[in-house]
Amino acid sequence: MSKPALTNSLQDIISHAKEYGFVFPSSEIYDGLQAVYDYGQNGVELKNNLKTAWWKAMTQLHDNIVGIDAAIFMHPLTWKASGHVDGFNDPMIDNKDSKKRYRADQLLEGKAEEYTAAGEAEKAQALLAEMGRLLSAEDLAGVRDLIIAENIVCPISKTANWTEVRQFNLMFSTQVGSVAEDSSLIYLRPETAQGIFVNFLNVQKTGRMKIPFGIAQIGKAFRNEIVARQFTFRMREFEQMEMQFFVRPGTEMEWYSAWKETRMKFHKAVGLPAEKLKFHDHEKLAHYANAAVDIEFEFPFGFREMEGIHSRTDFDLRNHQELSKKKQQYFDAELDANGKPYGNYIPYVVETSVGADRLFLATFCNAFTKETVGEGENEKERTYLKLHPALAPIKAAVLPLVKKDGLAEKGEAIAQSLKSSFRTVYDDGGAIGKRYTRQDLIGTPFCIAVDYQTMEDDTVTIRHRDSMEQERVSISELKEKIGYQVSMERILENI
Amino acid sequence: MSKPALTNSLQDIISHAKEYGFVFPSSEIYDGLQAVYDYGQNGVELKNNLKTAWWKAMTQLHDNIVGIDAAIFMHPLTWKASGHVDGFNDPMIDNKDSKKRYRADQLLEGKAEEYTAAGEAEKAQALLAEMGRLLSAEDLAGVRDLIIAENIVCPISKTANWTEVRQFNLMFSTQVGSVAEDSSLIYLRPETAQGIFVNFLNVQKTGRMKIPFGIAQIGKAFRNEIVARQFTFRMREFEQMEMQFFVRPGTEMEWYSAWKETRMKFHKAVGLPAEKLKFHDHEKLAHYANAAVDIEFEFPFGFREMEGIHSRTDFDLRNHQELSKKKQQYFDAELDANGKPYGNYIPYVVETSVGADRLFLATFCNAFTKETVGEGENEKERTYLKLHPALAPIKAAVLPLVKKDGLAEKGEAIAQSLKSSFRTVYDDGGAIGKRYTRQDLIGTPFCIAVDYQTMEDDTVTIRHRDSMEQERVSISELKEKIGYQVSMERILENI
Repeated sequence: MSKPALTNSLQDIISHAKEYGFVFPSSEIYDGLQAVYDYGQNGVELKNNLKTAWWKAMTQLHDNIVGIDAAIFMHPLTWKASGHVDGFNDPMIDNKDSKKRYRADQLLEGKAEEYTAAGEAEKAQALLAEMGRLLSAEDLAGVRDLIIAENIVCPISKTANWTEVRQFNLMFSTQVGSVAEDSSLIYLRPETAQGIFVNFLNVQKTGRMKIPFGIAQIGKAFRNEIVARQFTFRMREFEQMEMQFFVRPGTEMEWYSAWKETRMKFHKAVGLPAEKLKFHDHEKLAHYANAAVDIEFEFPFGFREMEGIHSRTDFDLRNHQELSKKKQQYFDAELDANGKPYGNYIPYVVETSVGADRLFLATFCNAFTKETVGEGENEKERTYLKLHPALAPIKAAVLPLVKKDGLAEKGEAIAQSLKSSFRTVYDDGGAIGKRYTRQDLIGTPFCIAVDYQTMEDDTVTIRHRDSMEQERVSISELKEKIGYQVSMERILENI
Repeated sequence: MSKPALTNSLQDIISHAKEYGFVFPSSEIYDGLQAVYDYGQNGVELKNNLKTAWWKAMTQLHDNIVGIDAAIFMHPLTWKASGHVDGFNDPMIDNKDSKKRYRADQLLEGKAEEYTAAGEAEKAQALLAEMGRLLSAEDLAGVRDLIIAENIVCPISKTANWTEVRQFNLMFSTQVGSVAEDSSLIYLRPETAQGIFVNFLNVQKTGRMKIPFGIAQIGKAFRNEIVARQFTFRMREFEQMEMQFFVRPGTEMEWYSAWKETRMKFHKAVGLPAEKLKFHDHEKLAHYANAAVDIEFEFPFGFREMEGIHSRTDFDLRNHQELSKKKQQYFDAELDANGKPYGNYIPYVVETSVGADRLFLATFCNAFTKETVGEGENEKERTYLKLHPALAPIKAAVLPLVKKDGLAEKGEAIAQSLKSSFRTVYDDGGAIGKRYTRQDLIGTPFCIAVDYQTMEDDTVTIRHRDSMEQERVSISELKEKIGYQVSMERILENI
């Protein structure tokens, strides 16, 4: 019992995710691949349902938002324009004795935290300020000197036998073509957004889009994180759900505010409670942004970013225009206050960017429920996943009370009749109480029990996951009754 | 008019795909990236709908098939076990004058085709046999000698000034970790199947699966194709939809036959006509297979593989067991003819593997329709996409006859009321005939026209895309009437 409670809780969640087929360590039979995970049979359904909810919330609810699916491979100049080739670095330092590698800035931040904990807040602030100054000036030798001056040692070797500080680019690269002279270095995209920017005019023209309009995309991105941790929160391969909203320059702050509200509504609609969500304004803005906020969720390890909303100005389109020599302009025919068309301009962009794996993790953590039920002798702990019915991996399970007397066949026939409408399984293995529990543990909202009365009057009981209450309904009502509750419409109506 | 008709037809399809937002060349503003494409605003919807149809046909219609989503990054030993590190090569040869690179086997096959065309079938067969012998013996010098003996010249330089023949591995590789000693070479997966094999026991145990059962997966795979061509048919980055079905050894041929039929049914259910589909048995089997067949579709460039169905024996699981030292066995409690449990064994595998991009291309080619309508003076050509309503990017477009007299507002309200159920757009720009055409070109099955009668009796006309027939219905009926026809259930019911 020496570990803090929060860590235990994340451990519980990781165990549950593994044990019930939500998340497996990647390539586990080969002892895994660090910071990479696979989604299991229930995880993939939950994640797909979250992706569908986001996709429909963007492209189906809005006439002026359309999707695309750009390739992971992009022309290498894309990453020159975006600033990733030159600026997407972490300052790294190695300890020569332990051979362990660290992020230099994180070593210094750790020291500052120590000062703060010791009541020396001023010292902490001075240290962080000095670090910021050195990093901005790209004075890496100075960063190393500071680490040594502060007596920071490697937690493993306990020595200060440090290498130089070097910048390490976080993009993965590979060779496309072949070993001959026509092969070239390309990158695995570190963000999906650029796939939208390079297609901005293709979509605008072929889709006859009028500003303001948005382009949405879901896809994989890759970052060679040195220090990956916290389960699926920070992975080397991850999935983003990004929407770039193109607006007239000068109107971006209105849209920025509007999207903040709309996105917060979404997270509540998929079932995350208001008290576990908050906005966190960025104090320090990225080079391309004039406003930025995170939507944070309270994970077991604290409030952390789940989604970022950024006013990106015309930074990306302008750079692509310069590098590609292709105009990235929009002609705005609307009339201004003087009755003249706004004319040609490079649009400004408001971006909403969710980590799909983080939304998954937030949803999973939030759904994971342990509670005490029953009283006295019958008191016991009950674990279940309180997932929105539209997100649950399995919508309904048909469970015959016993296998004999035709109940099994009846149950199978009922399951079969529901399958083309929503994901329904049939289970006749073991005591019915155990079968309810099995469904609870993976979040199935409705269990349909087939009993002797069913054989007489074609009614069944529906047992509701959260309340464990049962109601008797006719078989003919099942499809409609459950169908509506598990449909994505239920989520979309609340956004 | 010098090009053959089939090429023209593929050209028409490529142009239509670009012009109406289905497929764009990747990174087009930087003059593209060879053999990589992006899906545009309509293409992504069509492709997602095809993926959903496949996914539901696998995991929703079958209790004994579940999905997973394994990462693209896998432990490098995976590709040792699968045979890709050692055997996933193409024999390449360069012409020193043109600096162009060719697949040595394709040069020889081209020569054999010339012989066949010239009526010298025996010579062609002898050449192919000799090539097969040399490649099997990995006699690359012999392959080069054969190319020179056959007087094969580079089509560009017209010379036989050839380099040596070298084996070129088709896997993309990248460094994970960092520049330090703990970094390692990993591959971008060349197939998704291995993500299923390494998770076989995780899924079987946590999902309590009993043989026979299947694991389905949709995901990206990457191959460094030297000669990529035919639009999205052969890309360096592509998407697979694979299902591995685990069976008791000895029963694999029954399941192989059953899956052949089921998969053919699927392609018909999504709208591909029987006369454009056929089975093609493999004459030469891959090292891991004891039976293999392709489902071919008649593309504009001929019948080509869209899906492969392979009886893979226990090749993969056995190799993973050997390399990982982790037993990949299943305990089969069912009783055999002697009343004893079948016991422990490594399951055999029947695989169904569709190229998602190929299914997309097949569906798009098949839907692309040009026909002559009207008579005499009114005769004109009409182009539309005859897509299954459940696959169409947009399900319904609401079009007011005119913008005035409240028709626009009425139309917008109707569109709004349908949006949470299925993808509906509102369009009031231009003459109504033009707006119908716009929807035809992207395959929208239903256009809802709002006219003056609507303002009186709350009825609208539904215009059907293929027949262009119109029917008058009440607004209150729209959601149910269209909703059923565009639902995935319509496809699933036919599989």
